[in-house]
Amino acid sequence: MAAWARAARALLLDVSGVLYDSGGDGGVPIAGSAEAVRKIKASSLKLRFCTNETQATREKFVKKLQGLGFDISVDEVTAPAPAACRVLKERNLRPHLLVHNDVVPEFAEIDKANPNCVVIGDAADNFSYANLNEAFRVLIGLENPVLISLGRGRYYKETDGLKLDVGAYMKALEYACDIQAEVVGKPAKMFFESALAELGVQPQQAIMIGDDIVNDVGGAQQCGMRALQVRTGKYRPGDENHPRVKPDAYVNNLAEAVDLILQQLHE
Amino acid sequence: MAAWARAARALLLDVSGVLYDSGGDGGVPIAGSAEAVRKIKASSLKLRFCTNETQATREKFVKKLQGLGFDISVDEVTAPAPAACRVLKERNLRPHLLVHNDVVPEFAEIDKANPNCVVIGDAADNFSYANLNEAFRVLIGLENPVLISLGRGRYYKETDGLKLDVGAYMKALEYACDIQAEVVGKPAKMFFESALAELGVQPQQAIMIGDDIVNDVGGAQQCGMRALQVRTGKYRPGDENHPRVKPDAYVNNLAEAVDLILQQLHE
Repeated sequence: MAAWARAARALLLDVSGVLYDSGGDGGVPIAGSAEAVRKIKASSLKLRFCTNETQATREKFVKKLQGLGFDISVDEVTAPAPAACRVLKERNLRPHLLVHNDVVPEFAEIDKANPNCVVIGDAADNFSYANLNEAFRVLIGLENPVLISLGRGRYYKETDGLKLDVGAYMKALEYACDIQAEVVGKPAKMFFESALAELGVQPQQAIMIGDDIVNDVGGAQQCGMRALQVRTGKYRPGDENHPRVKPDAYVNNLAEAVDLILQQLHE
Repeated sequence: MAAWARAARALLLDVSGVLYDSGGDGGVPIAGSAEAVRKIKASSLKLRFCTNETQATREKFVKKLQGLGFDISVDEVTAPAPAACRVLKERNLRPHLLVHNDVVPEFAEIDKANPNCVVIGDAADNFSYANLNEAFRVLIGLENPVLISLGRGRYYKETDGLKLDVGAYMKALEYACDIQAEVVGKPAKMFFESALAELGVQPQQAIMIGDDIVNDVGGAQQCGMRALQVRTGKYRPGDENHPRVKPDAYVNNLAEAVDLILQQLHE
């Protein structure tokens, strides 16, 4: 951690793999993370949670994290589904949804009749062959197929192991239809820019902390922010030799990151 | 159809979309195709069926086609599963199989304990989220992940509509693991070369007839063969503007192709 940390006015935290490890049982907090969030809130730093989580509405997601001991509220969360809804409305797009059942309510106000695009999220068990075929047929039947993806993550870690994320299925549909998806979650620039706007800070005043070398670290750096990678969640030692992305620093976990940053601020 | 057709000594026929349209009910023959196969067999031309079909053993597949009225036997068929078995044996690879239940017997003699690679075929309903995760975990747990794909088709047509093919799921695993699959079916050069060897002809003496612009037409042309695209099966008008592949001729169906070629031979 170096002098640049002293310029920090805001922290952006990824959630899954940084605050907690998700899982069918609701997940488990990562040691020290709840206390680290409290320390940030007691400091002069602003805070925003930036998640690509699309397995639940933000309300449900936040309630789960509160249950795990985190001080977090819905209006502190930047997530892909509301970003997608803005895009759909602006462009008069009517989506066929291939998403987790629990995130469907985020699209309640969107017209879904006679779809002219597909929105794909981390649908988990909804990624059946039948459902993927249905989304494929909507796309291949359109003159100008539009595929909006709520993220481009490869995989994530749950308590019972690694799971494929939305990015893998986005690639399957891209290949089948010979198209490029539009990504509205991390690492899309628009996503980080909207979080920075919500915080009211410049990129060079913000530090992103995440476990995903490409989507958290690379995405934030592309926006002009500093970014730390935690060695929790989906972190793997091979990440430290990533050919394109190099974090501004590695930390063992969120607790260590926050202690180091606060230490710099107080020097 | 031009003078080059007079040099033909052998025809290679794709099966699904050329002989018949597959489907849950067993499929339906394409009008005139059974008669066209009989005409080839009555002519001086050699014949080989080249399929990426991996939803059944060759025995079962051939029996189905015989039931639809086609004159075809197992030893006339070049298919990806036997090609994959040769590769597995040569390289001491023990596969985790993500394939259709009905093609598993093709791998009966292959050691599958403690897998050190994944073989993916057109698994259809076996492409569940759970099964894809399982294959992903095998790959991501290997020091040198090897993914062997029985094809790279995007989709195919069944009687009840278009279905995603193995290529889409291959891409999902490639992306998730940041690897490149090795394809043993069409359009792999090795696949066409093995069919030509089985026929005992040179590439310039052979004509491929298929409905897939990339895997049939492009793959065969890469091997130095002429190739026709039929306007049946998965053919779509947009194929005629393909940015990279241009068939040597278009024909409405196999019957027309065979009549035109035989006409040239007799001139």
